[in-house]
Amino acid sequence: MTGIYQNSFKGKKVMITGGLGFIGSTLAYRLVDLGAEVLLVDSLIPEYGGNIFNICGIEDKVKINIADVRDEHGMNYLVQGQDYIFNLAGTLSHIDSMRDPYTDLEINCRSQLSILESCRKYNPDVKILFAGTRGQYGKADYLPVDEKHAMHPTDVNGINNMAGEWYHILYNNVYGIRATSLRLTNTYGPRHQMKHPRQGIINWFIRQAIDGELIKIFGDGKQVRDANYVDDVVEAFLLAAVSDKTNGEVFNLGGEPASLEDLVKQIIEITGKGRYELISFPEESKKIEIGDYVADYTKIKKTLEWEPKVSLKEGLKKTIDYYEENKQHYWKTGEVL
Amino acid sequence: MTGIYQNSFKGKKVMITGGLGFIGSTLAYRLVDLGAEVLLVDSLIPEYGGNIFNICGIEDKVKINIADVRDEHGMNYLVQGQDYIFNLAGTLSHIDSMRDPYTDLEINCRSQLSILESCRKYNPDVKILFAGTRGQYGKADYLPVDEKHAMHPTDVNGINNMAGEWYHILYNNVYGIRATSLRLTNTYGPRHQMKHPRQGIINWFIRQAIDGELIKIFGDGKQVRDANYVDDVVEAFLLAAVSDKTNGEVFNLGGEPASLEDLVKQIIEITGKGRYELISFPEESKKIEIGDYVADYTKIKKTLEWEPKVSLKEGLKKTIDYYEENKQHYWKTGEVL
Repeated sequence: MTGIYQNSFKGKKVMITGGLGFIGSTLAYRLVDLGAEVLLVDSLIPEYGGNIFNICGIEDKVKINIADVRDEHGMNYLVQGQDYIFNLAGTLSHIDSMRDPYTDLEINCRSQLSILESCRKYNPDVKILFAGTRGQYGKADYLPVDEKHAMHPTDVNGINNMAGEWYHILYNNVYGIRATSLRLTNTYGPRHQMKHPRQGIINWFIRQAIDGELIKIFGDGKQVRDANYVDDVVEAFLLAAVSDKTNGEVFNLGGEPASLEDLVKQIIEITGKGRYELISFPEESKKIEIGDYVADYTKIKKTLEWEPKVSLKEGLKKTIDYYEENKQHYWKTGEVL
Repeated sequence: MTGIYQNSFKGKKVMITGGLGFIGSTLAYRLVDLGAEVLLVDSLIPEYGGNIFNICGIEDKVKINIADVRDEHGMNYLVQGQDYIFNLAGTLSHIDSMRDPYTDLEINCRSQLSILESCRKYNPDVKILFAGTRGQYGKADYLPVDEKHAMHPTDVNGINNMAGEWYHILYNNVYGIRATSLRLTNTYGPRHQMKHPRQGIINWFIRQAIDGELIKIFGDGKQVRDANYVDDVVEAFLLAAVSDKTNGEVFNLGGEPASLEDLVKQIIEITGKGRYELISFPEESKKIEIGDYVADYTKIKKTLEWEPKVSLKEGLKKTIDYYEENKQHYWKTGEVL
């Protein structure tokens, strides 16, 4: 697949917001390999995903600019001259967005608008890739969920991401600023933050297993999620970036479906540690729980020939190996932010 | 129809945001009649819809509080003890939202969230009625447009209204704060602001005809809009307020479809003044133009037995009579804000 964009990024200026985070840093490795001039913009807010260790090994091959996407003036400067922007900064927490809806709005809604305004004024020729989320759909009316599925998010984060995504499509349609949104599902893998469980349950299960803890699954454990390994997600972003067929379009990504209980069983088997129990939903989580979710990724498969390549078993193994080796850079046993 | 809610508002405390505006003030007359204690909250921002003349005749029967919905602390106080909130404050201009997307975001997105947060903290038993817009749908995939139609707004205002509406539905579902959204189409009638054309084209045509001006219709004049007379819209809000079947639901309103050219011809005939010409779309408008739009209002018809009662001819006549008599309170000939 790499052939398609092998030379597309060589010498190109690429900015990644949320660049020290999970997907951003994984993308940075690939882009450095492909010969791009990479600028990583990250706020390093402690509870979010940024971690300087994430770029260990390429720190001298990228530029780092610590800045918050809420800083309009900073963005006005930073977007200039970029060929591509991977706009990945954003909060992902369902629970946090309910506890503090304003911060979620500032980051996921207002900042997206301001990045687009910066591009309109200072770099209308850029191509922007936005990271949407399955949270925009809310509880599925049918499975698998395709892009035509109605959006009825069950939390503030889903609503703000929906708006954030549509600003991108709007600026594509009205101002010709080429933009594409990929709606991510349960992405997991190395370099995800591991300090709290509020941004991705698969990685959290892995931390608990590595620490030999009791993993608590809410509900009956039968809830299905489609796990997407981070390398597959990064591949989708690269493919979408270089194709003009993606301009103004949204695409679901998707992965291998598994029940939460199955996921946990596999994690325990691979680590050889941990155990689990099923407990009833806490009140706060129950009301925003979405039930089963599986994405239909036919559209991106047809358009870009993308499909997930890494099996769940293989992805879990790689992820667990990474954290067994680098745990000290990601969490302290017993400490939850 | 009035029978259904005849006694529902008697002695009830009702707050209307945007209460000095077009729909808000029309609603205020009805609620005063029905024996409610009415509190009108309005910012009186000059370009928006608020006009103190709008409540001429009931000024001693309502309370007025000049405040901006962006004022969180003010809202925390004002929502307390209200039985109903008709949450009508908001900008409606497609063009303005593109010129100044941040203000649109603050008013239509952030303020909605803050009103809901105020209710969650200080008045969770209230019922809130939100005014959504056909702009949320964008260009129609099919006609008539029902509530299941995908939302793909063509301007920032539509995106922010989409988010504003979903905050309401979310707070209904998660926190039990009863909320309903009515998605308005082309509402027209007395008490609409007439200072500029950016918030409703039908009323603007009426002003031009009354002033004997040349009315310019963009495009071929064949674009269909469904005109909804304000009294019908107010009736829908009252019906939706008192029914528990509407909690957490969104409903389209709709009216009598007509092409813009037909509308203008009727207006010219009734006023006996004005003339029109067809001109090509200005660049700024072309990109956010939505083509034909007709709402399917079957859902509210089935649920609340609501349907528009005032014919286009009758509604235009009433509107024109009102402005012929009260023009001096609404605009100065030749002056456009």
